[in-house]
Amino acid sequence: MTVRQLTLPELVGVCGQLDVGLVGLWREPVQEYGVEATAKLVRDAGLTVTTLCRGGFLTATDPAERARALADNRRAVDEAATLGTDVLVLVSGGLPAGSKDLHGARERIADALAELGPYAERHGVKLAIEPLHPMYAADRCVVSTLTQALDLAERFPAHQVGVTVDTYHIWWDDRAPEQIARAGAQGRIHTFQLADWTTPLPEGVLNGRGQIGDGSIDMRAWQSCVEAAGYTGPIEVELFNDGLWARDGREVLAETAERFVRHTL
Amino acid sequence: MTVRQLTLPELVGVCGQLDVGLVGLWREPVQEYGVEATAKLVRDAGLTVTTLCRGGFLTATDPAERARALADNRRAVDEAATLGTDVLVLVSGGLPAGSKDLHGARERIADALAELGPYAERHGVKLAIEPLHPMYAADRCVVSTLTQALDLAERFPAHQVGVTVDTYHIWWDDRAPEQIARAGAQGRIHTFQLADWTTPLPEGVLNGRGQIGDGSIDMRAWQSCVEAAGYTGPIEVELFNDGLWARDGREVLAETAERFVRHTL
Repeated sequence: MTVRQLTLPELVGVCGQLDVGLVGLWREPVQEYGVEATAKLVRDAGLTVTTLCRGGFLTATDPAERARALADNRRAVDEAATLGTDVLVLVSGGLPAGSKDLHGARERIADALAELGPYAERHGVKLAIEPLHPMYAADRCVVSTLTQALDLAERFPAHQVGVTVDTYHIWWDDRAPEQIARAGAQGRIHTFQLADWTTPLPEGVLNGRGQIGDGSIDMRAWQSCVEAAGYTGPIEVELFNDGLWARDGREVLAETAERFVRHTL
Repeated sequence: MTVRQLTLPELVGVCGQLDVGLVGLWREPVQEYGVEATAKLVRDAGLTVTTLCRGGFLTATDPAERARALADNRRAVDEAATLGTDVLVLVSGGLPAGSKDLHGARERIADALAELGPYAERHGVKLAIEPLHPMYAADRCVVSTLTQALDLAERFPAHQVGVTVDTYHIWWDDRAPEQIARAGAQGRIHTFQLADWTTPLPEGVLNGRGQIGDGSIDMRAWQSCVEAAGYTGPIEVELFNDGLWARDGREVLAETAERFVRHTL
């Protein structure tokens, strides 16, 4: 998504030129290109898919909507397995229209995970609950902290349900380091993502994830914390940013790779 | 600030018409009208000033900037005392330019409170640290949760330093109810403010505080929580909202009073 202006074949080509060997994919472009075709494309290029984003949106109260969400998440698991990644990132969903019940919404996520966890396990996929910044609590994700994400994940085996650690969402939280340790001790850090915090936030606050190094987040400190917790997996850079999307995708990917090297250990 | 389109004399007049007997004031319009003149205006009208907003911005590292901030906060204490309110709300300040050190910034607030707390006490004023929503952590307030605010406040006597509980900033936080109980047990809830959470957030996320009842926050639940913690003080409605500011101020105040009655206990 950092370079969504590139088609999948372009992305794969640029990754090859820049010596980037791992890539996180989003469902929409994969579905558009075809899941099997994407799997072949990345496999032929020797690229490894780190994660698939995203399943989730599990907070509906309406039974039909809920059934559709569960079916869609099972499809997302299938897609992840086809792409050869063992991690499906989950964005849990916001409050249903008119609801003010955050606790109830969080419990419905747990109910859904009880159904999806075993299904994912059978397909060799782990679910990674991503706590989103509290500014998304109403309309996108009622799971706002690593503490909440782990409280949910701990009801299930770690090889079924873990968490996504994303600097953009947790950097303000002085409790996050101890929660990263908690997640690591349980083997529940299923992926680690970077984005920087830049202000002012744009309207709707969706596409303001800053390029690494442009903002307020100490990337090395968070990387140290995650690695001290035992995480040895890939580190993803995930930027939604209208400014970056308006530029040449190859240039943005090169810049991102350079920033990654400069601001990580 | 909810009706900043009104001059202070207009505000006082409309409060009288609507039978509103308490009002929270902001420093800028008070300074413009004159502190003594404002004190006389509200006193003559029989209005009680609940709080003065706001001091704070105590995170600077530059010594001269820091000295200016402390002097300004002493002035804010003086203004509060002159207006006859015993509560000065503090917005702590964001990260200095280029800094990524949230912990250091929070410690500088503690250092400043050690100087300001005794000064405020001598003037009969209590400081109320306001945790702001984590979306303001970089540019406005490094104190993002009630837990953090109380961790700071507890270093000082409760009659010097307490907290502001504002629904807009804490509604997403499942740890907030226990922290309200903690604050109440210590006599540190120095004011309680309402605003609703509406989306999409506007650019810059400053002026999106929703009218009571328009958003995702269960006002009665938070009011119950604060009152169960022993709080018996006034409840303020503080809305920064471009839409409300564009309307007739008297109409907005009447609407706000009606919403308050409808959505509180």
